[in-house]
Amino acid sequence: MPGPVFLDGDRLTLRPIEEADLEFLQTQINDSRIWGPLGRSKPLNREQEREFFENRICGDDSVDLLIVADSTPVGTIGLFEFDWESQKAELGYWVAPEHHDQGYGTEATERVVRYAFDQLGLHRIAARVFEFNEPSKQLLETIGFSREGVHRDAEFVDGEYRDVYWYGLLEEEWRARSE
Amino acid sequence: MPGPVFLDGDRLTLRPIEEADLEFLQTQINDSRIWGPLGRSKPLNREQEREFFENRICGDDSVDLLIVADSTPVGTIGLFEFDWESQKAELGYWVAPEHHDQGYGTEATERVVRYAFDQLGLHRIAARVFEFNEPSKQLLETIGFSREGVHRDAEFVDGEYRDVYWYGLLEEEWRARSE
Amino acid sequence: MPGPVFLDGDRLTLRPIEEADLEFLQTQINDSRIWGPLGRSKPLNREQEREFFENRICGDDSVDLLIVADSTPVGTIGLFEFDWESQKAELGYWVAPEHHDQGYGTEATERVVRYAFDQLGLHRIAARVFEFNEPSKQLLETIGFSREGVHRDAEFVDGEYRDVYWYGLLEEEWRARSE
Amino acid sequence: MPGPVFLDGDRLTLRPIEEADLEFLQTQINDSRIWGPLGRSKPLNREQEREFFENRICGDDSVDLLIVADSTPVGTIGLFEFDWESQKAELGYWVAPEHHDQGYGTEATERVVRYAFDQLGLHRIAARVFEFNEPSKQLLETIGFSREGVHRDAEFVDGEYRDVYWYGLLEEEWRARSE
Amino acid sequence: MPGPVFLDGDRLTLRPIEEADLEFLQTQINDSRIWGPLGRSKPLNREQEREFFENRICGDDSVDLLIVADSTPVGTIGLFEFDWESQKAELGYWVAPEHHDQGYGTEATERVVRYAFDQLGLHRIAARVFEFNEPSKQLLETIGFSREGVHRDAEFVDGEYRDVYWYGLLEEEWRARSE
Amino acid sequence: MPGPVFLDGDRLTLRPIEEADLEFLQTQINDSRIWGPLGRSKPLNREQEREFFENRICGDDSVDLLIVADSTPVGTIGLFEFDWESQKAELGYWVAPEHHDQGYGTEATERVVRYAFDQLGLHRIAARVFEFNEPSKQLLETIGFSREGVHRDAEFVDGEYRDVYWYGLLEEEWRARSE
Repeated sequence: MPGPVFLDGDRLTLRPIEEADLEFLQTQINDSRIWGPLGRSKPLNREQEREFFENRICGDDSVDLLIVADSTPVGTIGLFEFDWESQKAELGYWVAPEHHDQGYGTEATERVVRYAFDQLGLHRIAARVFEFNEPSKQLLETIGFSREGVHRDAEFVDGEYRDVYWYGLLEEEWRARSE
Repeated sequence: MPGPVFLDGDRLTLRPIEEADLEFLQTQINDSRIWGPLGRSKPLNREQEREFFENRICGDDSVDLLIVADSTPVGTIGLFEFDWESQKAELGYWVAPEHHDQGYGTEATERVVRYAFDQLGLHRIAARVFEFNEPSKQLLETIGFSREGVHRDAEFVDGEYRDVYWYGLLEEEWRARSE
Repeated sequence: MPGPVFLDGDRLTLRPIEEADLEFLQTQINDSRIWGPLGRSKPLNREQEREFFENRICGDDSVDLLIVADSTPVGTIGLFEFDWESQKAELGYWVAPEHHDQGYGTEATERVVRYAFDQLGLHRIAARVFEFNEPSKQLLETIGFSREGVHRDAEFVDGEYRDVYWYGLLEEEWRARSE
Repeated sequence: MPGPVFLDGDRLTLRPIEEADLEFLQTQINDSRIWGPLGRSKPLNREQEREFFENRICGDDSVDLLIVADSTPVGTIGLFEFDWESQKAELGYWVAPEHHDQGYGTEATERVVRYAFDQLGLHRIAARVFEFNEPSKQLLETIGFSREGVHRDAEFVDGEYRDVYWYGLLEEEWRARSE
Repeated sequence: MPGPVFLDGDRLTLRPIEEADLEFLQTQINDSRIWGPLGRSKPLNREQEREFFENRICGDDSVDLLIVADSTPVGTIGLFEFDWESQKAELGYWVAPEHHDQGYGTEATERVVRYAFDQLGLHRIAARVFEFNEPSKQLLETIGFSREGVHRDAEFVDGEYRDVYWYGLLEEEWRARSE
Repeated sequence: MPGPVFLDGDRLTLRPIEEADLEFLQTQINDSRIWGPLGRSKPLNREQEREFFENRICGDDSVDLLIVADSTPVGTIGLFEFDWESQKAELGYWVAPEHHDQGYGTEATERVVRYAFDQLGLHRIAARVFEFNEPSKQLLETIGFSREGVHRDAEFVDGEYRDVYWYGLLEEEWRARSE
């Protein structure tokens, strides 16, 4: 059952994440194709997922939205690590493997970036991506993020230390692009 | 009812342990063919099993997975006693007697060992086995664990003090084997 | 619904006591033919029985089992007052009057005595019986307990002070008998 | 500083145990000549002794008195394990080694036995003594206690299992002796 | 009063931070020459400082040490944001303005970096510095840290958005340097 | 200030650990010559030491004693990880560096081993030592412990993974030696 729409896109709607979405979330977060690139590494049972839902999703420190295409949940996107004095936050997302290559991630990110600058008044948005995550790197670069750094050996994934690329996007850059 | 898969094997899937699995867990843990070799010795009613579920399974200090073959739960496997500064943990498992001799324990252990070294970045995994538990000793040796010690008279089982064998496996040994 | 078996006997099974057993327990514990010989003397309503269940049965300080014959609960048996430094405990049981004279008490006690010495590694088991409780005295003597003392006037039952007989059984005696 | 006298004897006074007595209690209870025959076996630091003081001495379930001779604390004596429905309790005491052989234990016990029958209306008093504790056995027999049982191998002390003798004294016996 | 030494250096000692150090900590943390470069911007009264002390210093998630020269506290240094699965942490420090230019920061950082790699078994240490903080940039580069990124406009200080430089040091680099 | 003696030796006394000993304990536990061989690696301020005191020393799950020579505290010794069903525990100790080479560790360990077998009725005592800790290995072998295993790469100390040797001593072995 679709919940209330918070942000509208062309093909997607972004809505608040509800308890009824826990099954979808828990299934995806235990899928190695999702937890690997997120830097997570442990299983989550329903109680643990619910605890995450209550602490993070129902908390006040982050903005979390479900990405919906044709009434079907396809992923989540959010802003977190808010630093209001410096007007910055970090952005993160994931799309379920079966819905990849549809441009959903790009469309959702564009919509949330616009919301972050226009509604939350942020000055800067940052994002982290694994060196091996080509699709995410392209998504961020398409939207206008610049690579600001390479944190070497920052996470251990699939038997090796991996570099993490940091990307940043400033309000004035984004507004210039949007014109 | 199948839950979300966390790790995939050839014949098995390993998934988070859910509240709905409590009946299976409680039945098995009260079976003397399982509690004997585990070094446990007391009955657990449903409330006590639930308390174990909430403290241990839903907690953050261990990784616990249900071993599933053809949608049927056949046992559990887990990593616990994590010492992150030394990057080590202990591994334990049990398979229900009616599913013995199928190689499920070996397949599940191989999958979790790979996960422990590749995803959790562990350097060392230890395991304890009773001297009389031939199948478990062979399982560990097959996977490449070395017997590191014999703790004499360490547990009282079936009227006698029994020796407990300690096994260890280091990351570099395992990687050498896997090539 | 039968619960998981913890210990098996010829005719009986001994299993953990569950919340679903509370009705049976409460009915029996209010029956004067049971509370008299147990030295209890007060009524227990359902809440009080539940409180006993949560504190004693679901606790860690005792081992309590339901005695089941042909899927029918017939009584309970347990070990309590554990003194681990001296490896001793006290044993107690009751069988519902309608199931007396079937030898259920004896079979359950033999099974638990074996469990206490073989699995819990106890050195000594004690038991208390009222002077007038001939069946219980014979049960304990049949199993090999020795009368160690007569505590005179130790309990007030049916208008008089009664003597309580103390029985004890040591591991080495029991093993000698079992050969 | 002497506290308020509760019971008077010829040479002794028995008074409530105060916080100021904790140093004396803690010193004695860690002395192996006292904890051995009491069946205790672990050290108690000041915090643990205070916890005992608050739970046991300051609680309502026991009567505990300091034995004082010439303003000097020499030991403690108490009644505990009250069973009011059967009007019985257990008696215990210890005297510091440097004050042995003065008859303090006997005098204190006579005074408390009289108090138990005359003021508390008890019908029966029990006491436990180790088989090797000749002085205590003689003390109890002098006062009129009868040996009611020998619990074999009931405590582990100094490398062996020891028997514990149970003694009992009934009100009518004691009154007959006192005439 | 000097507290117990935890790590020794040539001129400095590093010791645990005690309640008695709160006055020194609070004085420094309210000094704009310290809170500016730390990216902090709010006053802390004694209670707030104490709360920080109890949550952060007395907690288990960080390692915090007082830098002491000739029995005089001159600053603090610590490791935090531990990610044990990836064996990494962030390092931070400050030296009171009156003790600048003595090389205390460099000596303390070298000592803690050695401790982090040798005793905590870390693989990577990260540190953040403001673009305008030349002394800190030189300190980190002297020790062998590499600049890994420039997070543009990441903090608002003195009327402008400032860039934050991220530095990283890997275990193998540091060991190579130390030879 | 001397506290109550719990166990006596020739040159040493072993007494309960009191709050007044916290300064000595905290100084020693932050000394790298002590925390290294103990496998600890983090600083402890007074509050953290006090928390350890309240949870561990004042708790019921371990026996902890201060080693005193000529009224001077020289170290601590204790038994922990009790498994009463199997009657076993682990033993650990440390002696302050300035009091090394006096045989204090050996004398204290002999006294506690005797106490463990004679008073606590243990069947087995285990101990862990780092491969590089020659004095401790000799101490344990002198008392009669046997090396039961080598846990390879079990702890990270001073830049390398180290092996941990496990030693065990059984009651019957010790009694045979003592004759």
